Amino acid sequence: MQLDQLDQATPEQLKQWEAELANEYQTIVEQKLSLDLTRGKPSPEQLNLSDALDGILKGDYRAQDGTDTRNYGGLDGVPEGKQLGANLMGVSPDNVLVGGNSSLTLMFQVMLTAHQFGLAGPESAWKNEGEVKFLCPVPGYDRHHTVCEQLGIEMIPVPMTENGPDMDKVEDLVKQDSKIKGIWCVPKYSNPTGVVYSDDTVKRIAGLGKIAGANFRVFWDNAYAVHDLVDNPPELACVMSACERQGTEDSVIQFASTSKITHAGAGVAFVNASAANLKGFKQFLGSCTIGPDKVNQIRHSRFLPDRDALLQHMEGHAKLLKPRFAAVLDALDQAFSDNDLGHWQAPKGGYFVSFDTRPGCARETVRLASEAGVKLTPAGATFPYGKDPEDRNIRIAPSVPSVSEVKGAMQVFVICVKLASVRAQLKA
Amino acid sequence: MQLDQLDQATPEQLKQWEAELANEYQTIVEQKLSLDLTRGKPSPEQLNLSDALDGILKGDYRAQDGTDTRNYGGLDGVPEGKQLGANLMGVSPDNVLVGGNSSLTLMFQVMLTAHQFGLAGPESAWKNEGEVKFLCPVPGYDRHHTVCEQLGIEMIPVPMTENGPDMDKVEDLVKQDSKIKGIWCVPKYSNPTGVVYSDDTVKRIAGLGKIAGANFRVFWDNAYAVHDLVDNPPELACVMSACERQGTEDSVIQFASTSKITHAGAGVAFVNASAANLKGFKQFLGSCTIGPDKVNQIRHSRFLPDRDALLQHMEGHAKLLKPRFAAVLDALDQAFSDNDLGHWQAPKGGYFVSFDTRPGCARETVRLASEAGVKLTPAGATFPYGKDPEDRNIRIAPSVPSVSEVKGAMQVFVICVKLASVRAQLKA
Repeated sequence: MQLDQLDQATPEQLKQWEAELANEYQTIVEQKLSLDLTRGKPSPEQLNLSDALDGILKGDYRAQDGTDTRNYGGLDGVPEGKQLGANLMGVSPDNVLVGGNSSLTLMFQVMLTAHQFGLAGPESAWKNEGEVKFLCPVPGYDRHHTVCEQLGIEMIPVPMTENGPDMDKVEDLVKQDSKIKGIWCVPKYSNPTGVVYSDDTVKRIAGLGKIAGANFRVFWDNAYAVHDLVDNPPELACVMSACERQGTEDSVIQFASTSKITHAGAGVAFVNASAANLKGFKQFLGSCTIGPDKVNQIRHSRFLPDRDALLQHMEGHAKLLKPRFAAVLDALDQAFSDNDLGHWQAPKGGYFVSFDTRPGCARETVRLASEAGVKLTPAGATFPYGKDPEDRNIRIAPSVPSVSEVKGAMQVFVICVKLASVRAQLKA
Repeated sequence: MQLDQLDQATPEQLKQWEAELANEYQTIVEQKLSLDLTRGKPSPEQLNLSDALDGILKGDYRAQDGTDTRNYGGLDGVPEGKQLGANLMGVSPDNVLVGGNSSLTLMFQVMLTAHQFGLAGPESAWKNEGEVKFLCPVPGYDRHHTVCEQLGIEMIPVPMTENGPDMDKVEDLVKQDSKIKGIWCVPKYSNPTGVVYSDDTVKRIAGLGKIAGANFRVFWDNAYAVHDLVDNPPELACVMSACERQGTEDSVIQFASTSKITHAGAGVAFVNASAANLKGFKQFLGSCTIGPDKVNQIRHSRFLPDRDALLQHMEGHAKLLKPRFAAVLDALDQAFSDNDLGHWQAPKGGYFVSFDTRPGCARETVRLASEAGVKLTPAGATFPYGKDPEDRNIRIAPSVPSVSEVKGAMQVFVICVKLASVRAQLKA
């Protein structure tokens, strides 16, 4: 069976393919599999790499500056907590604020502050200007979209290219519409496409502050800063340095966390921003916390004392992740390299493989896979409001299952894509 | 020198007292003391009681229900985390949600949800009704006031009695003004008065849900639930049981934390509420976090496995706190029991002694103490907008300094109260 010329196939040929694939599919359904490619989270083996965290303090709860980390106080973290964030993001510790266990919470809080209270005083609050819009490169991260939706911020999708968001479109939109107050970015190993923003993209993102209003903010979610899967990983240009060169330091706010470095639910999250933005954010934080968990900060900084230790630790993750990604990519190559049933790029890091079906086939592929016992992230999830206009994108997350489970799940996936594609063509 | 009849004293007598006190005060100023009675936080010795927390897991990161606490997930906490909150608040674990390290953050988040997003769906959001007001028993906790201020909620002070807030006033106000959407309560060892709400007060608080609108919420900050300083501590009636008897379960939301039980900045916080309120709150939480730090939850539950262990642990705190409180109360008794220069009540638990000067003397007392090297919480801090209309209340927090430091600080305090009182009388 060759599916390389679906558009040219006769109805008879299509029907024959459909029958063969439906038969294959039925065999799989009868196996009653239970596999899951939905969650971008570390496997238990990856979590084991950081089990030395509990007990690492050996009774010494003092931070480097003498702070008793056990007590209340300190909105922005202890010095070694800031240094850990600085090591992770490649920035100055002076511009780092350390939060709790969730960078998503920090992103929500910064957006809430910008929207309702103002990062540069009450008069700078976005809500003062009425309707607020935000640019969302697509496909993107559903949790980012949820933050905007919760706050009533309208999302405008912009397409991703292999160098990052389509910057011509982004710049045009920002110039045309002053209600656009920012853009979500996952600049390295983008969720889900795996794209690393090019140097030119980073420069142009940093330049948005010159063409947008004073309250425009790039939300730079550097979630996969050190999450490489190849030996000579691509380097992401430093957005803050690019901002300094253009005098736009206040226009970008960077986020990161140790969630996919140590224990996903019990890590430390960071904000990197200009002194002015940090001041505005701390004013907000002062109303709703007496400070983050500093004990967990020193646990993490003793576990990962410098950038070398951090990178070495990440090699342990890569070793576990590589064969899982290879299983996904091998299956895709084998099934789709000689036809147009799917498009994807091999990511050099991060947690996902982003797969595009032929138009109108993603939802059906996910449905078929689900009925065959393979859970996939719902089609559309990577788009604002869950609406993929072409119904094409599927996010594959292979980190949690074992290698053989990934292989099994990909066998199912491949058949579901084929079956959905042939059936769509039959209807066309 | 006898100050028992300040109102009847002749100007000459007052001048003589002023000179004597000013002389005494000057001697103290020259000692260049540096003492601090401002912070309601545990001392290092108290924090030491919980140092076994780090390392307590010994590599076993599984919760009782099998959850791998290291990974993402679970908005409301693992079972033993809920049980710890239930043990602390005396409620059912089913109605407990476990948060991060800060109950203040939970209070802010619940108020934000109620105000802007609605605890019972979007149409229940307070902001839909325009202006929002909140009742604040005074003196009270400044951080509660800051939450309201941040959210633009108008605060209406209601006086505290020795049984809790003046419930006649509270009920009248709630009946008269539907814009009043709730009341702050610290029901046990109230901050700062140390009052424990009487059974009748608890019953009437639970009854507010019957006379107020559906969106009225009592914020029940049970911060000192097990923080006793006497052998047969007073019992606080269970507000949730009182609500059940009156069918007002949705009208009260309870908060607590281990902050003043284990490590103040690295503990676990709790919400106790009806299923409907928890549902509304979790809907909000889902937009801004992938879940709380569950590792810290199991650390805490293994350290404090049941209510007996919790109460026994608190005896260690009481042992350290009692002599400090005794030092405060002895100094006050000695100086003011035979005159009307100050009023206070000996608290049976909590972290504070609330002291009322004669009208118009609090600010000056705090200023004098500060210049003599004794830091006190700013006068007015215990009132909404920092405005104590009679300028009388001063919050004394003796937990951090050593016993001899508390004694030294109270010597200064007493002289400052006397000097401020005499000078005020001279001007009168």
